[in-house]
Amino acid sequence: MAVILPGSYTWCMSKGRLEAFSDGVIAILITIMVLELKIPEGSDLLSLRPMVPVFLAYVLSFVILGIYWNNHHHMLHATDRINGAILWANLHLLFWLSLIPAVTAWMGETSSAPVPTAVYGVVLLMAGMAYYILSNTLVRLLGPNSTLAIAVGKDIKGKVSVVLYAAAVPLALVNRWIADGIYVFVALMWLVPDRRIESKLKASRSSVA
Amino acid sequence: MAVILPGSYTWCMSKGRLEAFSDGVIAILITIMVLELKIPEGSDLLSLRPMVPVFLAYVLSFVILGIYWNNHHHMLHATDRINGAILWANLHLLFWLSLIPAVTAWMGETSSAPVPTAVYGVVLLMAGMAYYILSNTLVRLLGPNSTLAIAVGKDIKGKVSVVLYAAAVPLALVNRWIADGIYVFVALMWLVPDRRIESKLKASRSSVA
Amino acid sequence: MAVILPGSYTWCMSKGRLEAFSDGVIAILITIMVLELKIPEGSDLLSLRPMVPVFLAYVLSFVILGIYWNNHHHMLHATDRINGAILWANLHLLFWLSLIPAVTAWMGETSSAPVPTAVYGVVLLMAGMAYYILSNTLVRLLGPNSTLAIAVGKDIKGKVSVVLYAAAVPLALVNRWIADGIYVFVALMWLVPDRRIESKLKASRSSVA
Amino acid sequence: MAVILPGSYTWCMSKGRLEAFSDGVIAILITIMVLELKIPEGSDLLSLRPMVPVFLAYVLSFVILGIYWNNHHHMLHATDRINGAILWANLHLLFWLSLIPAVTAWMGETSSAPVPTAVYGVVLLMAGMAYYILSNTLVRLLGPNSTLAIAVGKDIKGKVSVVLYAAAVPLALVNRWIADGIYVFVALMWLVPDRRIESKLKASRSSVA
Repeated sequence: MAVILPGSYTWCMSKGRLEAFSDGVIAILITIMVLELKIPEGSDLLSLRPMVPVFLAYVLSFVILGIYWNNHHHMLHATDRINGAILWANLHLLFWLSLIPAVTAWMGETSSAPVPTAVYGVVLLMAGMAYYILSNTLVRLLGPNSTLAIAVGKDIKGKVSVVLYAAAVPLALVNRWIADGIYVFVALMWLVPDRRIESKLKASRSSVA
Repeated sequence: MAVILPGSYTWCMSKGRLEAFSDGVIAILITIMVLELKIPEGSDLLSLRPMVPVFLAYVLSFVILGIYWNNHHHMLHATDRINGAILWANLHLLFWLSLIPAVTAWMGETSSAPVPTAVYGVVLLMAGMAYYILSNTLVRLLGPNSTLAIAVGKDIKGKVSVVLYAAAVPLALVNRWIADGIYVFVALMWLVPDRRIESKLKASRSSVA
Repeated sequence: MAVILPGSYTWCMSKGRLEAFSDGVIAILITIMVLELKIPEGSDLLSLRPMVPVFLAYVLSFVILGIYWNNHHHMLHATDRINGAILWANLHLLFWLSLIPAVTAWMGETSSAPVPTAVYGVVLLMAGMAYYILSNTLVRLLGPNSTLAIAVGKDIKGKVSVVLYAAAVPLALVNRWIADGIYVFVALMWLVPDRRIESKLKASRSSVA
Repeated sequence: MAVILPGSYTWCMSKGRLEAFSDGVIAILITIMVLELKIPEGSDLLSLRPMVPVFLAYVLSFVILGIYWNNHHHMLHATDRINGAILWANLHLLFWLSLIPAVTAWMGETSSAPVPTAVYGVVLLMAGMAYYILSNTLVRLLGPNSTLAIAVGKDIKGKVSVVLYAAAVPLALVNRWIADGIYVFVALMWLVPDRRIESKLKASRSSVA
């Protein structure tokens, strides 16, 4: 009666469940942020004005979470097995991402006051470092010759993001608009999709075929 | 030990993860709207009366999100691969859908005041355009002879919806009931399921078999 | 480059996506109900006392949603294809289930006052009827000789539930405890798992093997 | 036209749906906890100070839910079929987990006052016992010679956790810091991943291959 699943299939499910769980958390985060978009008090156009900074903060965080989902998707796409360390490195990343709705609302409602803007940067910095740790843990598991390792390469963009976020945190206390500019710049830098992995994958596939 | 997934399988997973993520976001949106259905103050039938416009707005948005999920489902059903542009076109659609709970609550609580009704129309208009962009991006990827391209065809219904929403926004400021009528009409128009794709799919399948 | 998915596989995905979407909505409903469990004001045991009716209402609705998930799971288990009508019958069921958190909170916070208790019954009644419509739509699609049709049979339990809920609504206005007793009774009646389908499935499987 | 799914495949889907539903609920719980992280009133560093106990409680509960997800993942990994009893044992576990956000917020906002700290322990105790019931139900289904039964073994860690939680509840009323220390200790004990199951699985696989 028992169904014996071949080993490879169960590993694949493992990865699938990790992806599904991460998708679930990111989907919820991206959606509950909207709960912070409190309904305006009045019913005329003027009552929309205090919503503007809240809305802009929402757009920025939506794009940032979209980028994380997208990159996470590409990275696990090039992964064929996982282990306990990766499960926890992934949960660590999700922890920092889970703080984004709260700091987005704080930054938005204070019209990007210095301290909330710096705290927003701290969360992005920690998320960036958590992503770096996750990608390193994956490369260590899969080996330096794996598709993933070659595709990730030196990960210049990832390192630049972390350095820029680290700079934005103290700068937010000096001039918050510089910090906001850095957050937008890093997001735009990533909106260029991670063609590195996609192209390497395509190459490795055609060489197999 | 490593499991080598064949290329076709990984592409399929890719599409599966996009569907799962979209399902997740739409499922959450459809459900968190209910959080705006604040509990009545009293405990008698009269205390339900101010809930009526909120409830009607909720029903309308529930149906609209259901239609998007349904059509999204059919469209990706007829799709066999995705790429980075589609991931982002999809996230763009989800962004506008994610604003529906907030504008539904605003429209409902102001008993469909002119400005909230117009803003509701703006969000539906942008979502309609985002859906159009997504479907065009898919057709460009899959080619003009793909099942999807033939099934989508000239997409009269999609274009009519966008034009009607564009008309409803200024009309809401003149007479809000006209705008509400348009929103209901467009929803009813789509409740007729997208038999075009379904029938084409069935045809292409039987011709293969 | 394109991956041609065989027809059977795509149908299977279709059903999978319907299940995943329904699971998502029910999982969210079961979890956001907890958001209504507002934190007590004080920090002593006495401050837990007003939570008691809220908690009991929460337990009841948690069990009811669990039963729906469970039965939904068994019913779709015995289903091998779906169509547009089923997608909408399913969304209709999810609509009524989505109102459960709001009416649970209303009933709980008013310590089961007559009107909230009756409204709770109305939502359960509509959900019961929506489930009945969904199961009938499935039987019509799959045919009277399908595993599902035989397993569902006359569905005595489903019909009895609907009748009991219909009786509970007016009774709640007379004596709310009778209505509460009916809600608990129907839940207990269903906690006996739907062995009909499970046993028929097992039978049909062993006859194939 | 109908697709006949082989029995083994449908069982596998069953397990998949149970996993997906559990993942969904845990993902939502882990994410809605963040909704309790209310935005600070002011916009300076001092306004972050009352957030500290709330944040620490959040970190603890995030880690505990992460551990449950992780162990749940490993346990079902080693499972090849499920039945109705397991569905309900699983829902019972999810019920107690679903109370974690509310008790976390209560404990955090009262800076770990005695009663909220004890109530937090009650929920963890019940969740621990629910997990134990689930694992026993699985072992009973799969038999004493199954991979799962061997891997779970005597489950010392599970039993120790339940005993420690049972001790923490009355201790919280005497000295809350002892209880908090116990909660942290149990979490750290589990952060060591459940290598038992992982290594047994690897062993059984290599012996098959």
